[in-house]
Amino acid sequence: MSDVKEYMLTVGQSARKAASVISSVSTKQKNTALLETANAIDAHRDMLIQENKKDLEKAREHGLDDAMLDRLALTSDRIDGMIEGLKQVAALDDPIGVINDLKYMPSGIQVGKMRVPLGVIGIIYESRPNVTVEAASLCIKSGNATVLRGGSEAIHSNKAIASCLAVGLKAAGLPETAVQVVETTDRAAVGEMITMPEYIDVIVPRGGKGLIERISRDAKVMVIKHLDGICHVFIDRDADESKALAVSLNSKTQRYGTCNTMETLLVDACIAQDILPKLSDLYAEKAVELRGCPETTKLLPNIKEATEDDWTTEYLAPILAIKIVKDMDAAVEHINKYGSHHTDSIITENYTRGRQFLVRVDSSSVMINASTRFADGFEYGLGAEIGISTDKIHARGPVGLHGLTSEKFVVLGDGHIRQ
Amino acid sequence: MSDVKEYMLTVGQSARKAASVISSVSTKQKNTALLETANAIDAHRDMLIQENKKDLEKAREHGLDDAMLDRLALTSDRIDGMIEGLKQVAALDDPIGVINDLKYMPSGIQVGKMRVPLGVIGIIYESRPNVTVEAASLCIKSGNATVLRGGSEAIHSNKAIASCLAVGLKAAGLPETAVQVVETTDRAAVGEMITMPEYIDVIVPRGGKGLIERISRDAKVMVIKHLDGICHVFIDRDADESKALAVSLNSKTQRYGTCNTMETLLVDACIAQDILPKLSDLYAEKAVELRGCPETTKLLPNIKEATEDDWTTEYLAPILAIKIVKDMDAAVEHINKYGSHHTDSIITENYTRGRQFLVRVDSSSVMINASTRFADGFEYGLGAEIGISTDKIHARGPVGLHGLTSEKFVVLGDGHIRQ
Repeated sequence: MSDVKEYMLTVGQSARKAASVISSVSTKQKNTALLETANAIDAHRDMLIQENKKDLEKAREHGLDDAMLDRLALTSDRIDGMIEGLKQVAALDDPIGVINDLKYMPSGIQVGKMRVPLGVIGIIYESRPNVTVEAASLCIKSGNATVLRGGSEAIHSNKAIASCLAVGLKAAGLPETAVQVVETTDRAAVGEMITMPEYIDVIVPRGGKGLIERISRDAKVMVIKHLDGICHVFIDRDADESKALAVSLNSKTQRYGTCNTMETLLVDACIAQDILPKLSDLYAEKAVELRGCPETTKLLPNIKEATEDDWTTEYLAPILAIKIVKDMDAAVEHINKYGSHHTDSIITENYTRGRQFLVRVDSSSVMINASTRFADGFEYGLGAEIGISTDKIHARGPVGLHGLTSEKFVVLGDGHIRQ
Repeated sequence: MSDVKEYMLTVGQSARKAASVISSVSTKQKNTALLETANAIDAHRDMLIQENKKDLEKAREHGLDDAMLDRLALTSDRIDGMIEGLKQVAALDDPIGVINDLKYMPSGIQVGKMRVPLGVIGIIYESRPNVTVEAASLCIKSGNATVLRGGSEAIHSNKAIASCLAVGLKAAGLPETAVQVVETTDRAAVGEMITMPEYIDVIVPRGGKGLIERISRDAKVMVIKHLDGICHVFIDRDADESKALAVSLNSKTQRYGTCNTMETLLVDACIAQDILPKLSDLYAEKAVELRGCPETTKLLPNIKEATEDDWTTEYLAPILAIKIVKDMDAAVEHINKYGSHHTDSIITENYTRGRQFLVRVDSSSVMINASTRFADGFEYGLGAEIGISTDKIHARGPVGLHGLTSEKFVVLGDGHIRQ
């Protein structure tokens, strides 16, 4: 057995053992772990920044670009953010042990469902070291053990953060192995993590599309993932113009690099002539490059013609593809064909088409008269999110504490036997 | 491309297309499809029995045993059962489109969750042709398209049933391809089904452990499965004796061949001496063979000693393993170690240990003072079940209509944009 295999086996076994403890501890204990971790992080700011510097220096040596360096950096503000995040998760309701729908059956037994942890969650992520705290805190609160595999470029930062988590867990009387940061930077560790269903129940990959595709292809355990965010806004013929302009602009320009940013705008042919020039002016103010279907370029002769590839591209940049469609049916068809089942919004005052859009668009978030940028765990009131799932199985859309849990049936009888 | 590959590709593509239609049709249309299928089955009883005879004859030629032949046979009673089942599923509430928890967020948007179908469900099963109707009816009601792959020994029966389903679907104005029975008996068809995530979203295997293990290992899509039913009853020191005797007897002897039958009885050492001889007498009346741990054989000297294998064996027969444990902690440890996370019951009048058992036993159904035989979709009020899942992801325990669905977020705004 290779060293990495053996090491990961030890990590996995410790995680499984810790999971059986943390699955049924009190809410108070879990909150103590979170708040004491926050205290430890606060008390060890200098150490964290020191360790982070080692990562930053190495990253510069390796020629990482400024965006990567920025994501890697732990500033005092970001440390405040980590502390704040821990307090917020501590303040969330504990989902574990909640029993729902306890009903009497004709036989006389009482049947309900109890929310329980999944077991061990593996998180695989890149650069941003604050993910270590975010992910660990959600797993602790939901009664799961965690194995965290950050990028090798952040290894010192992640280990430093892990030491604070260990302090918090210990202070709460919980096993320190409930959160483990993989300490080897050997890439083979990822291969082990995703193929040990005996020890890891779910993998949440966070990072580039390449990483996520590779993990999904090779994983032997459930993967909660999202690949693309090809989000659409469709301006229906009965849209209120001011809402259409505001939402279309906000969905594209409020932030360019996020998965819930609109990448394609669909416009009903009946109103295209009227609204597109106004939109074009607004986007011009923000220096957004427009690419249009042939019909669009007739109305906006200065823009580039879109190719087939544009309908499936997540620009993550100030670029927007625009297509004029015959009606809502054509819009829905386009979205279900080219979209990534992430987030799509219709702008309309029409009651029937609004309802139909909600039902027929096959995406994790479907909206009426709202910006796609709202598709987010905080905005949805989940408190925090571990990721956004574009899959349908188990968890869909922003994944908060509930996505890290399951339910079991509980049956209360009084000596009942089956006839 | 092989013929089977090509054929399965056509089946998959047709299923995906049908899924996009059946996902958003009215409850009335789906119920019409179910009730018209029931009418078609009723009208074609002779044809069904005729086609079933072909299968039975071939099965006899191939030397299938009596139990297999019995499972394969379509009698008039079983046809009545199929018709009754269709009516029951039609009478269930439609889960699709239900919007829950529609709440206003601080930003002003209203966020809720809408229940939606999964897409295409693949069912792989053996001999019993009535599964064809059961599985198809649950998929139709939950707005999913289905690809059904029954055993080759039932191919004529399954095709005949499929023709009745086609009549029902057509009468409701639904695509006949919403339910497809795989018409080739080539085993390669299964391999194709479980590796086409583009066309099939979930696989539900029903059959022997070997089949399910093979499918789980090779599948590239989510599998809803259960492997074993190693169910336990634990008689706590504070058990009410009459409840303990009744439940222990019922859990083992009400039916031997089902997955929710008790296979191991755990008895608290404090009361073993008192209760085991009484239990032994009751089991003797039913000719149940007992196998005990060394402590048990001291109290019941006439029984066989259990080996380590007995704790992990699903007998599906009148055999019961008995172990005396020190206390509830030891019982929970035994169950979580040797059990199959299916169904386990504690018999106790003790409030604290009852509550703890519910939390700490990691099984899909956990019971107090009730027979393990209750772990069943009908008994739990689900109306019907497509299987019992011993996994934690997505669906756990008896899987009814809800297990064949997912939820998407719906967001209702009034031109809201993100600040």
